[in-house]
Amino acid sequence: MLPATARRVIQLLSRLPGVGEKTAQRFALELIVDPEFALELGKQLEALPSQVGICEGCGNLAEVHAGSPPTCPVCADERRSRTLLCVVARVQDLMAIERSGAMRGRYFVLGRLLSPLDGIGPEAIRLSALEARIQQDQVREVILATPPTVDGEATALYLARELAARGIVVTRIASGVPHGGDLEFADQITLGRAIEGRRGVGS
Amino acid sequence: MLPATARRVIQLLSRLPGVGEKTAQRFALELIVDPEFALELGKQLEALPSQVGICEGCGNLAEVHAGSPPTCPVCADERRSRTLLCVVARVQDLMAIERSGAMRGRYFVLGRLLSPLDGIGPEAIRLSALEARIQQDQVREVILATPPTVDGEATALYLARELAARGIVVTRIASGVPHGGDLEFADQITLGRAIEGRRGVGS
Repeated sequence: MLPATARRVIQLLSRLPGVGEKTAQRFALELIVDPEFALELGKQLEALPSQVGICEGCGNLAEVHAGSPPTCPVCADERRSRTLLCVVARVQDLMAIERSGAMRGRYFVLGRLLSPLDGIGPEAIRLSALEARIQQDQVREVILATPPTVDGEATALYLARELAARGIVVTRIASGVPHGGDLEFADQITLGRAIEGRRGVGS
Repeated sequence: MLPATARRVIQLLSRLPGVGEKTAQRFALELIVDPEFALELGKQLEALPSQVGICEGCGNLAEVHAGSPPTCPVCADERRSRTLLCVVARVQDLMAIERSGAMRGRYFVLGRLLSPLDGIGPEAIRLSALEARIQQDQVREVILATPPTVDGEATALYLARELAARGIVVTRIASGVPHGGDLEFADQITLGRAIEGRRGVGS
């Protein structure tokens, strides 16, 4: 009953992560009643693949320039340490750490986490690219910044074993009670980690 | 830090209903890693305004053909009664009623509901267009199919008063326990309406 182009747009929008048929319909209707919005979004999406790519070095987003491989601002910044490498699961995690301003080294985006339950094994993560990067940049310390979830911990554990065998210092981001958090409402595992990961203070 | 086109795409995507900055980022990343998806969605969105419009008669979605005003399949179907008119809030509601197959008349999409608390008064809904439609089609019965919510009921009440004063039969869709629903878990208002709206059965 819907016009063909509307049906096609709904079908495409429902491929976005977390978007079902009903949500895609709502999006499509919003775009149909606002033609300028639809045209502008359409134009920008058509331009996207020729303008934005994935950084060859780390997997971050990068501007595309003809004649040279896509390089992100972090990899292009020569002031940043090459020997300190932070491994993250997703580009969003890289952006979050960048906003904290706490990382003075470079990044490596795995793209996904190991998930034995879903049948995602070591061959799915970019281990050989990570190893090549470590060798090329003579990395001394790898910070494992995968999330403190079951899959994130499994991935960190796997990488720690693989890399430590090669004589690299491997560290894991701290897990504990978040800043501003309330101990009363923290879950048992978080509190357990906060106690285990305690650090000396004072003189 | 993000490439300009990626920033612009995220900004546009966050204008979709219910989509915030983080969700827009996830959508954009999905589109960046899948260039074919981005190109196809972009192409279809650019085509959308020239192919899909709003039906002049009822407000439903309609295919656009050069030289004639957009007319939806319902309004184009001469077998459907003109004298029975179903008033709905949104195009999605029209589509839901069409799927039920229970409506043999035509529709009128209000576009929005009255919402006194949000300052949306009678001037915001297309009352004069509805009145013109009623007169033109010599409508005998108007079915008010706005949702059984506070705003939907307020709108139905307002329209009922305006239209009844013009000598038209005005009806409201039934509200009660949904098919397959459990009485134990139905809320008080729904059960109250189910009792009030009871109908005679048997001989």
